[in-house]
Amino acid sequence: MAVYTLDELASLVEGRVVGEAGTRIEGVATLANASSRQISFLANPRYQRQLSETRAAAVILSESELPYCPVNALVTSSPYIAYARIAALFAPDRLSGHHGVHPAACVSADATVHETASIGPNCSIGAGAIVGANSRIGPGCFVAENARIGADCLLVGNVSICHGVRIGERNIIHPGAVIGSDGFGFANVGGEWLKVPQLGSVVIGNDVEIGANTTIDRGALDDTVIEDGVKLDNQIQIAHNVRIGAHTAMAGCVGVSGSTRIGRRCAVAGGVGIAGHLEIADDVTITAMSLVLKSIKNAGSVHSSGIPTEPNRSWNRRLVYFRRLEEMADRLKSIERQLATENNKQED
Amino acid sequence: MAVYTLDELASLVEGRVVGEAGTRIEGVATLANASSRQISFLANPRYQRQLSETRAAAVILSESELPYCPVNALVTSSPYIAYARIAALFAPDRLSGHHGVHPAACVSADATVHETASIGPNCSIGAGAIVGANSRIGPGCFVAENARIGADCLLVGNVSICHGVRIGERNIIHPGAVIGSDGFGFANVGGEWLKVPQLGSVVIGNDVEIGANTTIDRGALDDTVIEDGVKLDNQIQIAHNVRIGAHTAMAGCVGVSGSTRIGRRCAVAGGVGIAGHLEIADDVTITAMSLVLKSIKNAGSVHSSGIPTEPNRSWNRRLVYFRRLEEMADRLKSIERQLATENNKQED
Amino acid sequence: MAVYTLDELASLVEGRVVGEAGTRIEGVATLANASSRQISFLANPRYQRQLSETRAAAVILSESELPYCPVNALVTSSPYIAYARIAALFAPDRLSGHHGVHPAACVSADATVHETASIGPNCSIGAGAIVGANSRIGPGCFVAENARIGADCLLVGNVSICHGVRIGERNIIHPGAVIGSDGFGFANVGGEWLKVPQLGSVVIGNDVEIGANTTIDRGALDDTVIEDGVKLDNQIQIAHNVRIGAHTAMAGCVGVSGSTRIGRRCAVAGGVGIAGHLEIADDVTITAMSLVLKSIKNAGSVHSSGIPTEPNRSWNRRLVYFRRLEEMADRLKSIERQLATENNKQED
Repeated sequence: MAVYTLDELASLVEGRVVGEAGTRIEGVATLANASSRQISFLANPRYQRQLSETRAAAVILSESELPYCPVNALVTSSPYIAYARIAALFAPDRLSGHHGVHPAACVSADATVHETASIGPNCSIGAGAIVGANSRIGPGCFVAENARIGADCLLVGNVSICHGVRIGERNIIHPGAVIGSDGFGFANVGGEWLKVPQLGSVVIGNDVEIGANTTIDRGALDDTVIEDGVKLDNQIQIAHNVRIGAHTAMAGCVGVSGSTRIGRRCAVAGGVGIAGHLEIADDVTITAMSLVLKSIKNAGSVHSSGIPTEPNRSWNRRLVYFRRLEEMADRLKSIERQLATENNKQED
Repeated sequence: MAVYTLDELASLVEGRVVGEAGTRIEGVATLANASSRQISFLANPRYQRQLSETRAAAVILSESELPYCPVNALVTSSPYIAYARIAALFAPDRLSGHHGVHPAACVSADATVHETASIGPNCSIGAGAIVGANSRIGPGCFVAENARIGADCLLVGNVSICHGVRIGERNIIHPGAVIGSDGFGFANVGGEWLKVPQLGSVVIGNDVEIGANTTIDRGALDDTVIEDGVKLDNQIQIAHNVRIGAHTAMAGCVGVSGSTRIGRRCAVAGGVGIAGHLEIADDVTITAMSLVLKSIKNAGSVHSSGIPTEPNRSWNRRLVYFRRLEEMADRLKSIERQLATENNKQED
Repeated sequence: MAVYTLDELASLVEGRVVGEAGTRIEGVATLANASSRQISFLANPRYQRQLSETRAAAVILSESELPYCPVNALVTSSPYIAYARIAALFAPDRLSGHHGVHPAACVSADATVHETASIGPNCSIGAGAIVGANSRIGPGCFVAENARIGADCLLVGNVSICHGVRIGERNIIHPGAVIGSDGFGFANVGGEWLKVPQLGSVVIGNDVEIGANTTIDRGALDDTVIEDGVKLDNQIQIAHNVRIGAHTAMAGCVGVSGSTRIGRRCAVAGGVGIAGHLEIADDVTITAMSLVLKSIKNAGSVHSSGIPTEPNRSWNRRLVYFRRLEEMADRLKSIERQLATENNKQED
């Protein structure tokens, strides 16, 4: 078990200790649940009330919260970042302790698995595939022919990597994710659909995280591209030939249609749908359950079309009036005409 | 093959036979397709027309439908519940007939699998994991380190149970479901994302059913919790630290964001999105494709924001007027001012 | 490597060569990336600009684009269809080269696997299951008891086919797809849910393609049916007892609720939700993120309810006015009354 002094932790995050510098810290926990051997943090004002009652060994917080802290404090300008760095010290290292190929894995004689990589039970590594140094492929994954996984990647389990997909370094891919399935391409021949072969691949950069059951289709001719540092939550669908710029983050259940290019450092909230062949600028935010049908050229802009709930009765009434909008506009116009006529009369 | 007399079935559901008590029943079927050896049911008035033409051996129905029944009847105040109980007699028992560990399964020497449990081919059970009595783990599942599956559970196949997840008794988990993937937690450091370790787990009660390709993320520090009797349909995304109250049901494609707490016996329709850090009271209903952005305090209330389709041309016109709303409000105000001025003049 | 002359390709698609008929073609590529040994195509006017700069060996295009083509041309009235046919010549044949049962597959002694079929590593084929001629089951799939896969099918990998599901010929099923999971059927007994056994199955026709992580539930009593030539993209949810008519195509993230019947040759865009027990006519189009709550009787009609994004500030203002609609209607009515009274007065 890892143990650090509060002082050591403060050095790591360039913070300042207020209280006992030598306090031993054995783990992290929430303000409400932390024991006297754990460090906690306050980053969201929502949890301010819990600060006064915490029994934590210490709390990571900002200068402005210091007066309300009943225990040792680790003061920093960025408590959440400091917490993330400290929590990583106490998180199990999921890339270690499993070296080698499990006897119940099937590795093609023509595959190249680095000697420090680990391949779990019931995995299948196809001909020409490469698995880089220190990468860990969990149980039930397949890495198909000629796919390449870089160094220090974690495929948690039951991940599908289709043929020829190229994945960089330090990526984390959660269970059920599918990378490189065929794009949805069909030509209509007299009312029936003719499959258009999907001959491109998927290229994923470094430091990318891909959530559970997220799917990324291979390109039709060129590749689908996910740049460095992109973070995709669960149940996301990325269609063929999409490009997602570096450090963009997408929450769960987003769908992006084919050939759309999304900029860098964008934030796409849950349930958003983005049509095909669009361009989204850098640093754009799209709020929850919005439907993007046009390109967004304005870097840093925020876009929405999600409508929040209200009680069902008032919502149903609202829909009734929504459907009368055109009629209301007509009546408004007719009133304006009537008033104009009367004004004219009065002026006569 | 199971065979019951109509009388035996009536006793089971505390119903009343009208007709031949000794009629032999060998199965269940719809009104339209039932043969003279099968029992059917009428629970939805939509299918009333089919009653008069049924060739079923008997029909489960309510007193009020009895006069229209051309065959034997099993009368009960709750035909659908009675049908569910009777159908269960004829359904194959999916927990029996597969005891033991399949030779093509990988069970860690440090795992504990009950002698009455069954582990299918290509499964992987990690160190410290526990599988309870009579539980059946279908082909291709993994149960990672220190995860616990209670008694009488069915994991149909290709299910992913991540490390340390705790699952109660009598749960059914459908293929492709992922329990315990990392929550989506990142701290922004100068435009790039730093992973926040997800150190909590997922705790699932008893009698829970989880649909195909549904994902439930592990908590950041505390656990994500699914209480007893919750029923989740397919393709649902439950984020980290969510709590879902007992006997709540959610239809397909729902997404719930982090730290939201949903009450007991709620009904969430398909495609709903619920934002993070909210509280939803007990017995709340949310209708299809609604977006919940605020807490709902009112127990038993119904909430909506889904807009139903209309023909594309009229919809496009409606959007035009929707975009003119502010202008219309301005014109309305200007008319009111004009009228007020005129009234003042007339009063002068 | 396949090599064709331009003339041979033109014959195949009944097109006309303008330029060197004997030009050797070794592959396909986009206008921008094609080398002098590859053929490209122009089917979308969006890419017209790239035509003048292409270095392709030849371009498939329509008569009207011919004057702008700087290289050899293959002229046809349907460039996209011609491209699809030609690209198929250069696509790897994914059904060949893997005959037989992999030693790490588990095939029940009571299953019937055709001698020309291939079963990949870590697959499990249950008792009574059938796999037809030339079909290829990729790594990590399960085909449960009594399920039937016809000839010439491709299950790419990690696909789940539940018990008794019947799949026709020439189907392609992508990773993570689940066919035959239980429908979402429960009877409410005093606030708790009683499972209604799902005793039907799923029947899938010929030439169907099913995307990654798409789920299709088995019927409650009768079967869920997917007719010939249906194309389903990724992350789609099809509930129990749905019927999808032949040659209908659905884009990603669509959800269809129970017992709904969708006609032939329909086009359903991404993120659409369709309620249960509806009937959708043939050739209907539903645009992105629409919510269908009523049957659509009008064949060939187009339906919508998706609202496109706008900048967040103007959207928030729009929502404010949307919520004032009823009040605006009241004020409009009050103005009309006032004007009517004045008119009456003036007429007096």
